[in-house]
Amino acid sequence: MSNAALQLDDVVHQRVRLGILAVLAESRRADFVYLREALEVTDGNLSRHLQVLEAAGYVRIEKIFEGRRPRTWVAATTTGREAFESELEALRNLIARIDGPRAE
Amino acid sequence: MSNAALQLDDVVHQRVRLGILAVLAESRRADFVYLREALEVTDGNLSRHLQVLEAAGYVRIEKIFEGRRPRTWVAATTTGREAFESELEALRNLIARIDGPRAE
Repeated sequence: MSNAALQLDDVVHQRVRLGILAVLAESRRADFVYLREALEVTDGNLSRHLQVLEAAGYVRIEKIFEGRRPRTWVAATTTGREAFESELEALRNLIARIDGPRAE
Repeated sequence: MSNAALQLDDVVHQRVRLGILAVLAESRRADFVYLREALEVTDGNLSRHLQVLEAAGYVRIEKIFEGRRPRTWVAATTTGREAFESELEALRNLIARIDGPRAE
């Protein structure tokens, strides 16, 4: 039996990581503070999820100094964008499967 | 700032649990073996996720004997169906937000 949930990738599907990739799909890059506020998570929580995404090759993390101010920029890689697209496709399939029979 | 990922409920959103609720949205009830095969998980993994859903009041688990054969039936509660509907709504919002700007 096939189930749409099987198509989901845990690395991308997890709520906070999905949120990070959603933000990065809308803008070329986002800084750590922006992501933390947008996703309402703690520093530690965001760091952990960014590490998982970085280890999977889905985001690139760059720590730079702007004047004296350190800033952490996060951007999705091509692989990350593709993984996010696959997740959206899997979610669309799951939704279509649920909505389908009802619409008949 | 609002982010669609914030609307997601970790209890329902987790991949295997989302799969369980998707199966239960399509049929009144499902047995343990069917869910295990459909979601391609181990007994222990499925049990753990069912416990999380049961603790949240999202599924009802019934162990019965059919003749001499023990069978575990799982059904979604009304609260569980509502939580699944909210998840689908949150996912639709997330997808619409991503697809929206591209369509313009």
